[in-house]
Amino acid sequence: MLERIRIVLIGTSHPGNIGGTARAMHNMGLADLALVAPRCEPLTADTISRASGADHLVHGARTVETLEQAVADCTLVVGASARSRTLPWPMITPRELGERLPKELAGPESRIALVFGREDSGLSNAELQRCHAHVHIPANPDFSSLNLATAVQVLAYECRLAWLAQQESPAPDTEPAQPLASHEELEHYFAHLERTLIAIGFHDPAMPRQLMARLRRLTLRSRPERMELNILRGILSATEKQANGETPVDHGEPDPPA
Amino acid sequence: MLERIRIVLIGTSHPGNIGGTARAMHNMGLADLALVAPRCEPLTADTISRASGADHLVHGARTVETLEQAVADCTLVVGASARSRTLPWPMITPRELGERLPKELAGPESRIALVFGREDSGLSNAELQRCHAHVHIPANPDFSSLNLATAVQVLAYECRLAWLAQQESPAPDTEPAQPLASHEELEHYFAHLERTLIAIGFHDPAMPRQLMARLRRLTLRSRPERMELNILRGILSATEKQANGETPVDHGEPDPPA
Repeated sequence: MLERIRIVLIGTSHPGNIGGTARAMHNMGLADLALVAPRCEPLTADTISRASGADHLVHGARTVETLEQAVADCTLVVGASARSRTLPWPMITPRELGERLPKELAGPESRIALVFGREDSGLSNAELQRCHAHVHIPANPDFSSLNLATAVQVLAYECRLAWLAQQESPAPDTEPAQPLASHEELEHYFAHLERTLIAIGFHDPAMPRQLMARLRRLTLRSRPERMELNILRGILSATEKQANGETPVDHGEPDPPA
Repeated sequence: MLERIRIVLIGTSHPGNIGGTARAMHNMGLADLALVAPRCEPLTADTISRASGADHLVHGARTVETLEQAVADCTLVVGASARSRTLPWPMITPRELGERLPKELAGPESRIALVFGREDSGLSNAELQRCHAHVHIPANPDFSSLNLATAVQVLAYECRLAWLAQQESPAPDTEPAQPLASHEELEHYFAHLERTLIAIGFHDPAMPRQLMARLRRLTLRSRPERMELNILRGILSATEKQANGETPVDHGEPDPPA
């Protein structure tokens, strides 16, 4: 279970925090680290010092340019967020995250990303809206920003506790899972949805009014299966054809003989 | 509740870890920090940097020479320990620590110390034997040593969750608590006990055979009330008098008239 949990750090500024993250991960039995557009050299003396023997996780980390690339294959993307945003998103506690893990990782293709933002500014709204849920570490409201590696430690700790509990108890009684849509499939769907809404004159990117954010939230909350997403994309394709003045497909009558 | 939880760092070598501890504490709403014989200047540029705005906790920290001084007034002393020792001690998980807090802090004079050892060697056996219980953060057995400030974060996080849960639910149904013996009172008792055992020829400090450690463990496990400890000390005093050849107190007959 733990090997299918990825820690994603976006725009990290301090190599020491990358080292501290590696140490916290290895302490808790996590191994999959991705760095998105780090704003520092990831592997420095500070990294090695704070990693304290876990720097192999930094050597093995994948460094990519965008969040998309880091989480494309993930079936659940959870963003660490200290702030409440203009558009409230499904919010879970670290403990609830742990409790959800066994079911979330029941399918053989399931993979989870825990995404952490910049030391100074956290995750952007665009990044937060790419997450299925946000996780908030309960903190002193007057001083709520945890050190990056320390925040990773808290979530990794809850993941480890959930894993240990699973070792002790039989597998949860879950229905055989249909494969969920991956992050990449969802993003293709959202891009298709936006094109279609523009085409039908419902959406004006110059006056977005959080329309796409609201649709993202709704869709991500439902955790679509791959099959369901294919259906939705079929609907979009049909809608686009309508908007482009093509002949609508007639479902009312059988096809005429060729 | 949180204001009666003290973090005690023994023999810390790196000022950054003191700063990181202050940040983790302030993040979780803790404020009482004690430093025992630090092996570094506690307040340096590294401290300020890692404290990230919480350095007032380091300014306000009490620095003392011995663990005794740091925890004298505490009614529960819990030592963070990664290792299992030759003499097993009551062991709790961080979660169990949180669950016990409301009851442990029910009495108005109750106070808890969470004790953390040196970066390189942890707590000594003598220090561990001064604790009522040991707390172990479940970690990768192949890489189990957490960064000091990170370990403080995990325990402080569990304390905060317990406090938040208490805010939401009515006070637990506990019996009106008798004041528990403080650490200092317990140590006076142990010193008295050892003197007495030597006096009666039961204990040879040159061949200790863990006798005192076993008696400590037994006594600490029972969480004696102050009143109970007074009774035990009365027994020791009577025993000492016996050993010194003084006339035993005769409880069988009323005192003769003066």
